[in-house]
Amino acid sequence: MKPDLSVFGIPGIGEIERGAPLADIIGDAIVSHLTTLVQGDIVVVTHKVISKAEGRFAKPVDGSVVEIVENEASAILRRRGELTITRTRHGFICANAGVDRSNVPGEDVVLLPLRPDRSAASIRNRLMKRFGTDIAVVVTDTFGRAWRRGLVDVAIGIAGLPALIDHRGKPDHTGRIMEVTEVAIIDEIAAAADLVMGKATSIPVAVMRGLHVGAQSSGNGKATDLVRSASEDFFL
Amino acid sequence: MKPDLSVFGIPGIGEIERGAPLADIIGDAIVSHLTTLVQGDIVVVTHKVISKAEGRFAKPVDGSVVEIVENEASAILRRRGELTITRTRHGFICANAGVDRSNVPGEDVVLLPLRPDRSAASIRNRLMKRFGTDIAVVVTDTFGRAWRRGLVDVAIGIAGLPALIDHRGKPDHTGRIMEVTEVAIIDEIAAAADLVMGKATSIPVAVMRGLHVGAQSSGNGKATDLVRSASEDFFL
Repeated sequence: MKPDLSVFGIPGIGEIERGAPLADIIGDAIVSHLTTLVQGDIVVVTHKVISKAEGRFAKPVDGSVVEIVENEASAILRRRGELTITRTRHGFICANAGVDRSNVPGEDVVLLPLRPDRSAASIRNRLMKRFGTDIAVVVTDTFGRAWRRGLVDVAIGIAGLPALIDHRGKPDHTGRIMEVTEVAIIDEIAAAADLVMGKATSIPVAVMRGLHVGAQSSGNGKATDLVRSASEDFFL
Repeated sequence: MKPDLSVFGIPGIGEIERGAPLADIIGDAIVSHLTTLVQGDIVVVTHKVISKAEGRFAKPVDGSVVEIVENEASAILRRRGELTITRTRHGFICANAGVDRSNVPGEDVVLLPLRPDRSAASIRNRLMKRFGTDIAVVVTDTFGRAWRRGLVDVAIGIAGLPALIDHRGKPDHTGRIMEVTEVAIIDEIAAAADLVMGKATSIPVAVMRGLHVGAQSSGNGKATDLVRSASEDFFL
């Protein structure tokens, strides 16, 4: 029986340095591991390799990232000890404005990509040319959540698919019209991909096959479509 | 190339009525669709079929669920119009205490299972006996989140796997010790399974193959391991 959804971790990406041709490196690893991409594939990329290729490094001052975090954040929402909950310039709410020192060689920390949707589009365009088929790209980061312990991967950049699948107004299987069911499909994709990536391993890319989410919706989205405005949010 | 992770939607469950032998019905559908379960499989079940089998129905008063929601909630955190953000008796924070009228025939609404971890364990035990192998079960619901638009599926009950994978103290791929990386693996599993279930379709069960999360950790968890205590939470 063929699975409805298959997720492949893509090994062999290696350490990414500033200026590295990331889309080509990812393409090479996909060829080595999967031979090719097929129509509808979703290539999920952890933002860290993108940040590194884009040179988004910073150097802590006396070992502290406080200044870097404050510089990266558009707002500080909460602070306790070393943990700061911030709004990033993109609008995402996460710890320490996404500034991260894990899986980074040397003393530098890695910042979020400046425009993750644009980074996703750039990788998508390059891979579509190379493999001659329509695919999507999702860029992820690992976020904490309010109320629930543990981190999950979420989408911070996308290209070639919508951020939300809107089931509002469609009948459910009993024929009743569903009231409020907008699914954050890109966050579910990010979470699923993380299951094959792992935090301690060096697998920053996954390919998801079988979802065909593009066909379920018209038009392309942005990851920032998920940002809920402050006036709509109960918990700011 | 074999995928690292495969997810199969399991069709043919049908409408579940109060008192239905749900584990047997799920087992039959798995046999029809997949022949069998293999060691390490994770069976993901949307809570709604469990609630129905357990008779967790309620009847709205004059079409309103307000009274039912207040009865189901252990705390009301926010209220705006028809939307109430609640803490459930299990400790989960979600809209309307999980009271849901979609995919329910007739006028009744469906409540959350009283003890979703126990429901998961019961289904797990029955399927392990039937298929003679060690599997895990995850029970899901669809929750909104603070700050991010769109719903995602999360775990509200589990059996046979830990709620969190703790990477703290392990070296990352550069050899640096990771600081805070507890991954809410069961929420990532729930999200991945939702990708093959869909909200408008009638596929309440998925089987995830290849993850072998049990092997990564000792002992079994509870979904309520994810509940962050009020004193630890910034956003209550």
